[in-house]
Amino acid sequence: MRLATVNHNNRATLVAALPDDQLLDLRSAAQQAGLDADDFLSMQSLIDAAEQGLSTARTLVANPPQTATIPLADVSFLPPIMPVQYRDCLVFEDHLTNCFRVMEEATGRNHEVPDVWYQQPIYYKGNRMSFIGHGTDVKWPHYAEHLDIELELAIVVGKTGKDIKAEDGINHIFGYTILNDISARDAQMAEMPGQLGPCKGKDFDTGNILGPFILTADEVPHPVALNMEARVNGERWGGGNSAQMQHDFGAILAHISASETVYAGEVIGSGTVGTGCGLELGKRLSDGDSFELEIEKIGILANRIVKGA
Amino acid sequence: MRLATVNHNNRATLVAALPDDQLLDLRSAAQQAGLDADDFLSMQSLIDAAEQGLSTARTLVANPPQTATIPLADVSFLPPIMPVQYRDCLVFEDHLTNCFRVMEEATGRNHEVPDVWYQQPIYYKGNRMSFIGHGTDVKWPHYAEHLDIELELAIVVGKTGKDIKAEDGINHIFGYTILNDISARDAQMAEMPGQLGPCKGKDFDTGNILGPFILTADEVPHPVALNMEARVNGERWGGGNSAQMQHDFGAILAHISASETVYAGEVIGSGTVGTGCGLELGKRLSDGDSFELEIEKIGILANRIVKGA
Repeated sequence: MRLATVNHNNRATLVAALPDDQLLDLRSAAQQAGLDADDFLSMQSLIDAAEQGLSTARTLVANPPQTATIPLADVSFLPPIMPVQYRDCLVFEDHLTNCFRVMEEATGRNHEVPDVWYQQPIYYKGNRMSFIGHGTDVKWPHYAEHLDIELELAIVVGKTGKDIKAEDGINHIFGYTILNDISARDAQMAEMPGQLGPCKGKDFDTGNILGPFILTADEVPHPVALNMEARVNGERWGGGNSAQMQHDFGAILAHISASETVYAGEVIGSGTVGTGCGLELGKRLSDGDSFELEIEKIGILANRIVKGA
Repeated sequence: MRLATVNHNNRATLVAALPDDQLLDLRSAAQQAGLDADDFLSMQSLIDAAEQGLSTARTLVANPPQTATIPLADVSFLPPIMPVQYRDCLVFEDHLTNCFRVMEEATGRNHEVPDVWYQQPIYYKGNRMSFIGHGTDVKWPHYAEHLDIELELAIVVGKTGKDIKAEDGINHIFGYTILNDISARDAQMAEMPGQLGPCKGKDFDTGNILGPFILTADEVPHPVALNMEARVNGERWGGGNSAQMQHDFGAILAHISASETVYAGEVIGSGTVGTGCGLELGKRLSDGDSFELEIEKIGILANRIVKGA
C-alpha cells in the first residue's frame, strides 16, 4: 500500500492510493464497512494499530467503497506524518566524497572520510516541527543565499523498540518515503566548524519535505534497493539507488536503538544519495525553482522554492 | 513561582512550590476555587494558557487551599515538561577552552575556538524523548565506559514565535530550569569526526535530566545571572554563573528563530558552564555515583547513575 495524509475539505485525512488517480479515505471506508474507524484518525493512529490496522486497510483497499474514494485532484498533500522525532543519517559514500572534493577545491584543504563513517551510521537530529508535504512551497530563509535540495530515502518507524538487532530492523519499519532535506549551504558551512553539526543550515520553516506517500514495508524486500532521481526545473541533476547505502536501515536502527528507545512514529532519513544534491554538482537553487525527487515505487515529491513568502 | 510536574498517587500532577516543603496541586486548587482547571492539566497546558494561566496560578499560590497541598515527601519528580523539541547550545567559553585543552593533551593536536563560536550561538538538537526527572536513576548505556555529567541552565519557551528580536527574547521565555546533559564521552569522541555533531554520545534512555523546578521568568532579571554548582558524591566538581554566557537566551532565541518558528514548550539548554563537567577536570563517573546540580533560585537536581538497570 501507499499511504498519505492529505488536506481534503479542510480536514487532514488519512488515505491510501488507488488506481486511476483515486485515493481511499480510510476512516470513511472503515465507518461504511461498520469497522472500528479510530485506527484511521491519522497516520500515527494507523502505526499504533500495528498489523491489525494495516490488515484492515488492505481489505478496504482491495474492495474500496466508492463513496469513500476521493479524486487525487481534490486534495493537497500534507506531510504523511508529523514525526515523533526526526533523525537524518549520512550513509552514501559517493555523497560524502563528492562533497569533500568540492570543499577541497574551494578551500585547498584535504578532507578524508573518517574511519568511523565506515564503522557506524553517523546521524544528526533535525527539526521535527518544520515539515511540509508534496506541493507546498518552500520559503527561502531570509538569512541565506545558497539553497540546495537533498534527495533521501526515509523510513517511518512502526514499532517501538530498544536494543533492536540489525536483522530484526525490518520488523520495526512501517514504511518508506521520500525526504527532501532542503539545506542552506552558506549557513551550514559557517556553523559546522562549531563541531555540533548542522543548525540553521537545516533548521528553518518548510526546510524538511516528506512524502507524497509512505510505501508500506511489505511491498519491498529488505534491505531496499530503489532507484532515486532528482530533477530541477525538469533537468536531471543526479540520483542513485538505495542499495548503495553503506549501512542499511536494519544497521541504522540497531545503532540508534542501543540503550535507547526508538518510538513508533519516528522518521529516520538515509542522508543524500550520491549526486542527489547541487553541492556535489556545482549547482544551486534560484528563486522560483521547481524540483522533483523520485523514488521507485513511492512516487514523486515535487515542490518549489520562493523568496519573500 | 517554582513549578514542577510530579508523580502523586500515580498521576502526573502540575504543582507549585510552597514554603515548608509543601507543594500545591494547581489543578485541584483551581477546581476548589471554582476556576477553570483545564489550564493546569500539565505544564504544557499552563504554558499554552500564557499570562492568564500564570496569573491564576500566582493567586492560588498566594492563598493555597490546604486540601490541595501535598507534602514534598509524598511525591516523586517527573521531568517538568516533555519538550516539544530540545536544543542544546554551547555558549560558555571556559567549557570549550577547557575541553580543547584536555583534547590537546590527549591527542597532541591543537584545537582553536572557531571564529563562528563568538559570532553566533552554536547548538545541536537532542533527543526529546529521553528525559527523566529529579531523583530518577540514570541507566548507564551498555556501549559506553566513560560517562559524565554536564551542568547547564535551560529555558522553557513560553510563547511561539519566529524572527524574534534579541531584545524581545525575554517575552518568549516561560522559565528557567536545570539541565543535566549526561554524556558518554567515548561514544561522543568516536562519532564526532563524522561532522554531524553528537549522536550516541548524548542519545540514550535517561540521558537528559530536567528539573526539579521551572523558575518562572518573572522571578529573575534578564539576562539571568545565577550561580551554578556541580557536586558528585558530595564533592564540589565545579561551577560558574550564567552571566558568563557568550550569547544570552535573547540572542539564542533570535538566532534560532530566524525564518523558523520556535514553539511554546520547546526546551533550549545553555551548554555546560565552565568546569561543569568531568571532562574538563580529568574526572569521570563510576557506577553508583550520585550527583547534584544546583542553580541559584531554581533548586538542586539530584540523580544517581547505575549499571545494569
